[in-house]
Amino acid sequence: MKDRNRQVSARSQIIKRRIRVICRLLKKKQIDCLIATKPANVTYMTGFSGNDSWALITKRQVYLLTDSRYTEQAEAECSCCEVIQRDAGLSETTAELVKKLKSIHTIAVEKSASLAVFDSLKRHFKGRLKTTANIIESARSIKDNGEIAAIKAAAQIAAKALRKIRQHIKPGITENKLAGRLDFEIRLLGARNSFDTIVAFGANASRPHHQPGSRKLKKNDTILIDFGVKYNGYCCDLTRCFAIGKMNPFYKKVYNAVREAQAAAIKTVKAGVEISRIDAAARKIIAERGLPIYGHGTGHGVGLEVHEEPVISAKTKGKIKAGMVFTIEPAVYIPGKLGVRIEDDILVTKKGHIVLTG
Amino acid sequence: MKDRNRQVSARSQIIKRRIRVICRLLKKKQIDCLIATKPANVTYMTGFSGNDSWALITKRQVYLLTDSRYTEQAEAECSCCEVIQRDAGLSETTAELVKKLKSIHTIAVEKSASLAVFDSLKRHFKGRLKTTANIIESARSIKDNGEIAAIKAAAQIAAKALRKIRQHIKPGITENKLAGRLDFEIRLLGARNSFDTIVAFGANASRPHHQPGSRKLKKNDTILIDFGVKYNGYCCDLTRCFAIGKMNPFYKKVYNAVREAQAAAIKTVKAGVEISRIDAAARKIIAERGLPIYGHGTGHGVGLEVHEEPVISAKTKGKIKAGMVFTIEPAVYIPGKLGVRIEDDILVTKKGHIVLTG
Repeated sequence: MKDRNRQVSARSQIIKRRIRVICRLLKKKQIDCLIATKPANVTYMTGFSGNDSWALITKRQVYLLTDSRYTEQAEAECSCCEVIQRDAGLSETTAELVKKLKSIHTIAVEKSASLAVFDSLKRHFKGRLKTTANIIESARSIKDNGEIAAIKAAAQIAAKALRKIRQHIKPGITENKLAGRLDFEIRLLGARNSFDTIVAFGANASRPHHQPGSRKLKKNDTILIDFGVKYNGYCCDLTRCFAIGKMNPFYKKVYNAVREAQAAAIKTVKAGVEISRIDAAARKIIAERGLPIYGHGTGHGVGLEVHEEPVISAKTKGKIKAGMVFTIEPAVYIPGKLGVRIEDDILVTKKGHIVLTG
Repeated sequence: MKDRNRQVSARSQIIKRRIRVICRLLKKKQIDCLIATKPANVTYMTGFSGNDSWALITKRQVYLLTDSRYTEQAEAECSCCEVIQRDAGLSETTAELVKKLKSIHTIAVEKSASLAVFDSLKRHFKGRLKTTANIIESARSIKDNGEIAAIKAAAQIAAKALRKIRQHIKPGITENKLAGRLDFEIRLLGARNSFDTIVAFGANASRPHHQPGSRKLKKNDTILIDFGVKYNGYCCDLTRCFAIGKMNPFYKKVYNAVREAQAAAIKTVKAGVEISRIDAAARKIIAERGLPIYGHGTGHGVGLEVHEEPVISAKTKGKIKAGMVFTIEPAVYIPGKLGVRIEDDILVTKKGHIVLTG
């Protein structure tokens, strides 16, 4: 019990710190109240892990607006905010609360909110309504020690689950069954998938978002597994490729190129490095080997969401900072022939980096 | 091969019919081009089952805007529309395409789209931009025979999976493991979850959206399982409650009340009935038994999405129509004590209804 109390107290310290940081930004931007509608942002600001709820962040207090399905859970999870059980719609409840608080003249809505949400707020709230983007997302992109530990724990579970399914990787198993086995092992380890597991055999791997199907593994075949684990609210995301039986020399060539491309990109990672440089380092190797360049980005942040800030691409402006965690996942796709992608999660440190999915 | 060709042809006939219906509505509303951004709406209008893609519906043609991760899949899935692989952002690509088409003066964006999407379109498109809601959703709420067959098939897989895990329902198993077993059986049957499976033992069931955890099943205990299957793109959604060992008489009383409430609501279902009447029929029984009334709606549509139109609640105005498929799921929640919810998927017919999850 003492341990649990200590945990709760540490957690509420962290959330209080986040609230202070965001409130300072709101003051600068002359926003009296920020409405967080994106579930991961709500979780970040309140600790609440359910859905269909908003966080209202004012200078004095954070409110969680939820409904009867979640009240019990919210009261258990949120020690730093006031939980309000709504009977009316979210916008209506927001407007009513804001009216009571009196000092709220300007409300900011996240740009990730829907047009319907904005319309509805406009109908109910008579003050000034504006939109903002990336206030909370930007804070979320720098992870604290607790968050890094959670991602690391998720990565360890992922590695364990992958080891457990090794015995099932035999000719005859379908993509679907192998994906199911992996998901089951993740569950048995007390965690969940951070997104729908991709298992692709042979040429199916040339579709980066292939959905596992009834294709059976052959005696000489190749496998791509892209999956992630969510543990204690935090995600990891990794991709592994391998061959069974006799390996085709061209597959080996491609595999080695992708591995080297990933290593080259990872090598550049250090606080202060331009994001586009990381992307370029990977693409350069693929191009040098005369292989087709992948169409997607080289990576993305992971944390409360499996895709979050920063985006690692040629177009992203800006530098990486210590505390960021993102994937590096170069690939080669040749439709009808093969697909190879290798993906790991990298923590940026002041002097370099740590591969969390090692 | 012949069979596959016949299937593809039947499918494209259906999609062509949908396009005709939507185009007629767009003409009425003086919209030159509708941008479908919601994945289920994109699927409905094109057959494409991936993500991060938009459908542009003009009087002459439907375009699917996707990226290199999905091009191969899109070309295999979409026979009635032109697949455009984009290198730039979705809004930019939309604006470029529309410029080429020349006759597009008014574009409508779905209200489910984000404020960021609307802003970005506004920056790139110089014509008139307006918002619309529920054009495709409303068409989707009436299912054709193929869609009904797909939901029925999903329900049959759900029933089979539930039978398969019976042997594992023994004292000592955790919520997490039981949920994992169920998900695995669904995979083995060639299908997927339509949402995160809820398994709640004992008092945990009083949280309608409980996340399965490490709680172990006791010798005398109660179980709530709320889960769904997605098969061929279509979802089902059902909840079953039961006791193992000696059943507490109060649990039995509550269970019977919920079952009768559900039966009373289902009995009212027939084309032309007011939605609020269905909701009221269920709540009346719960109230008569002196039990607390559930805070959520009585049901929701199922189809391409697990939550879609219509919403079955006291506040919803309008009547149900033949071809609609929705859940009926009354419940009783007593925090710290118990939770009972019974949920089935009901097809509305001209003369009555059919329970698809029977």
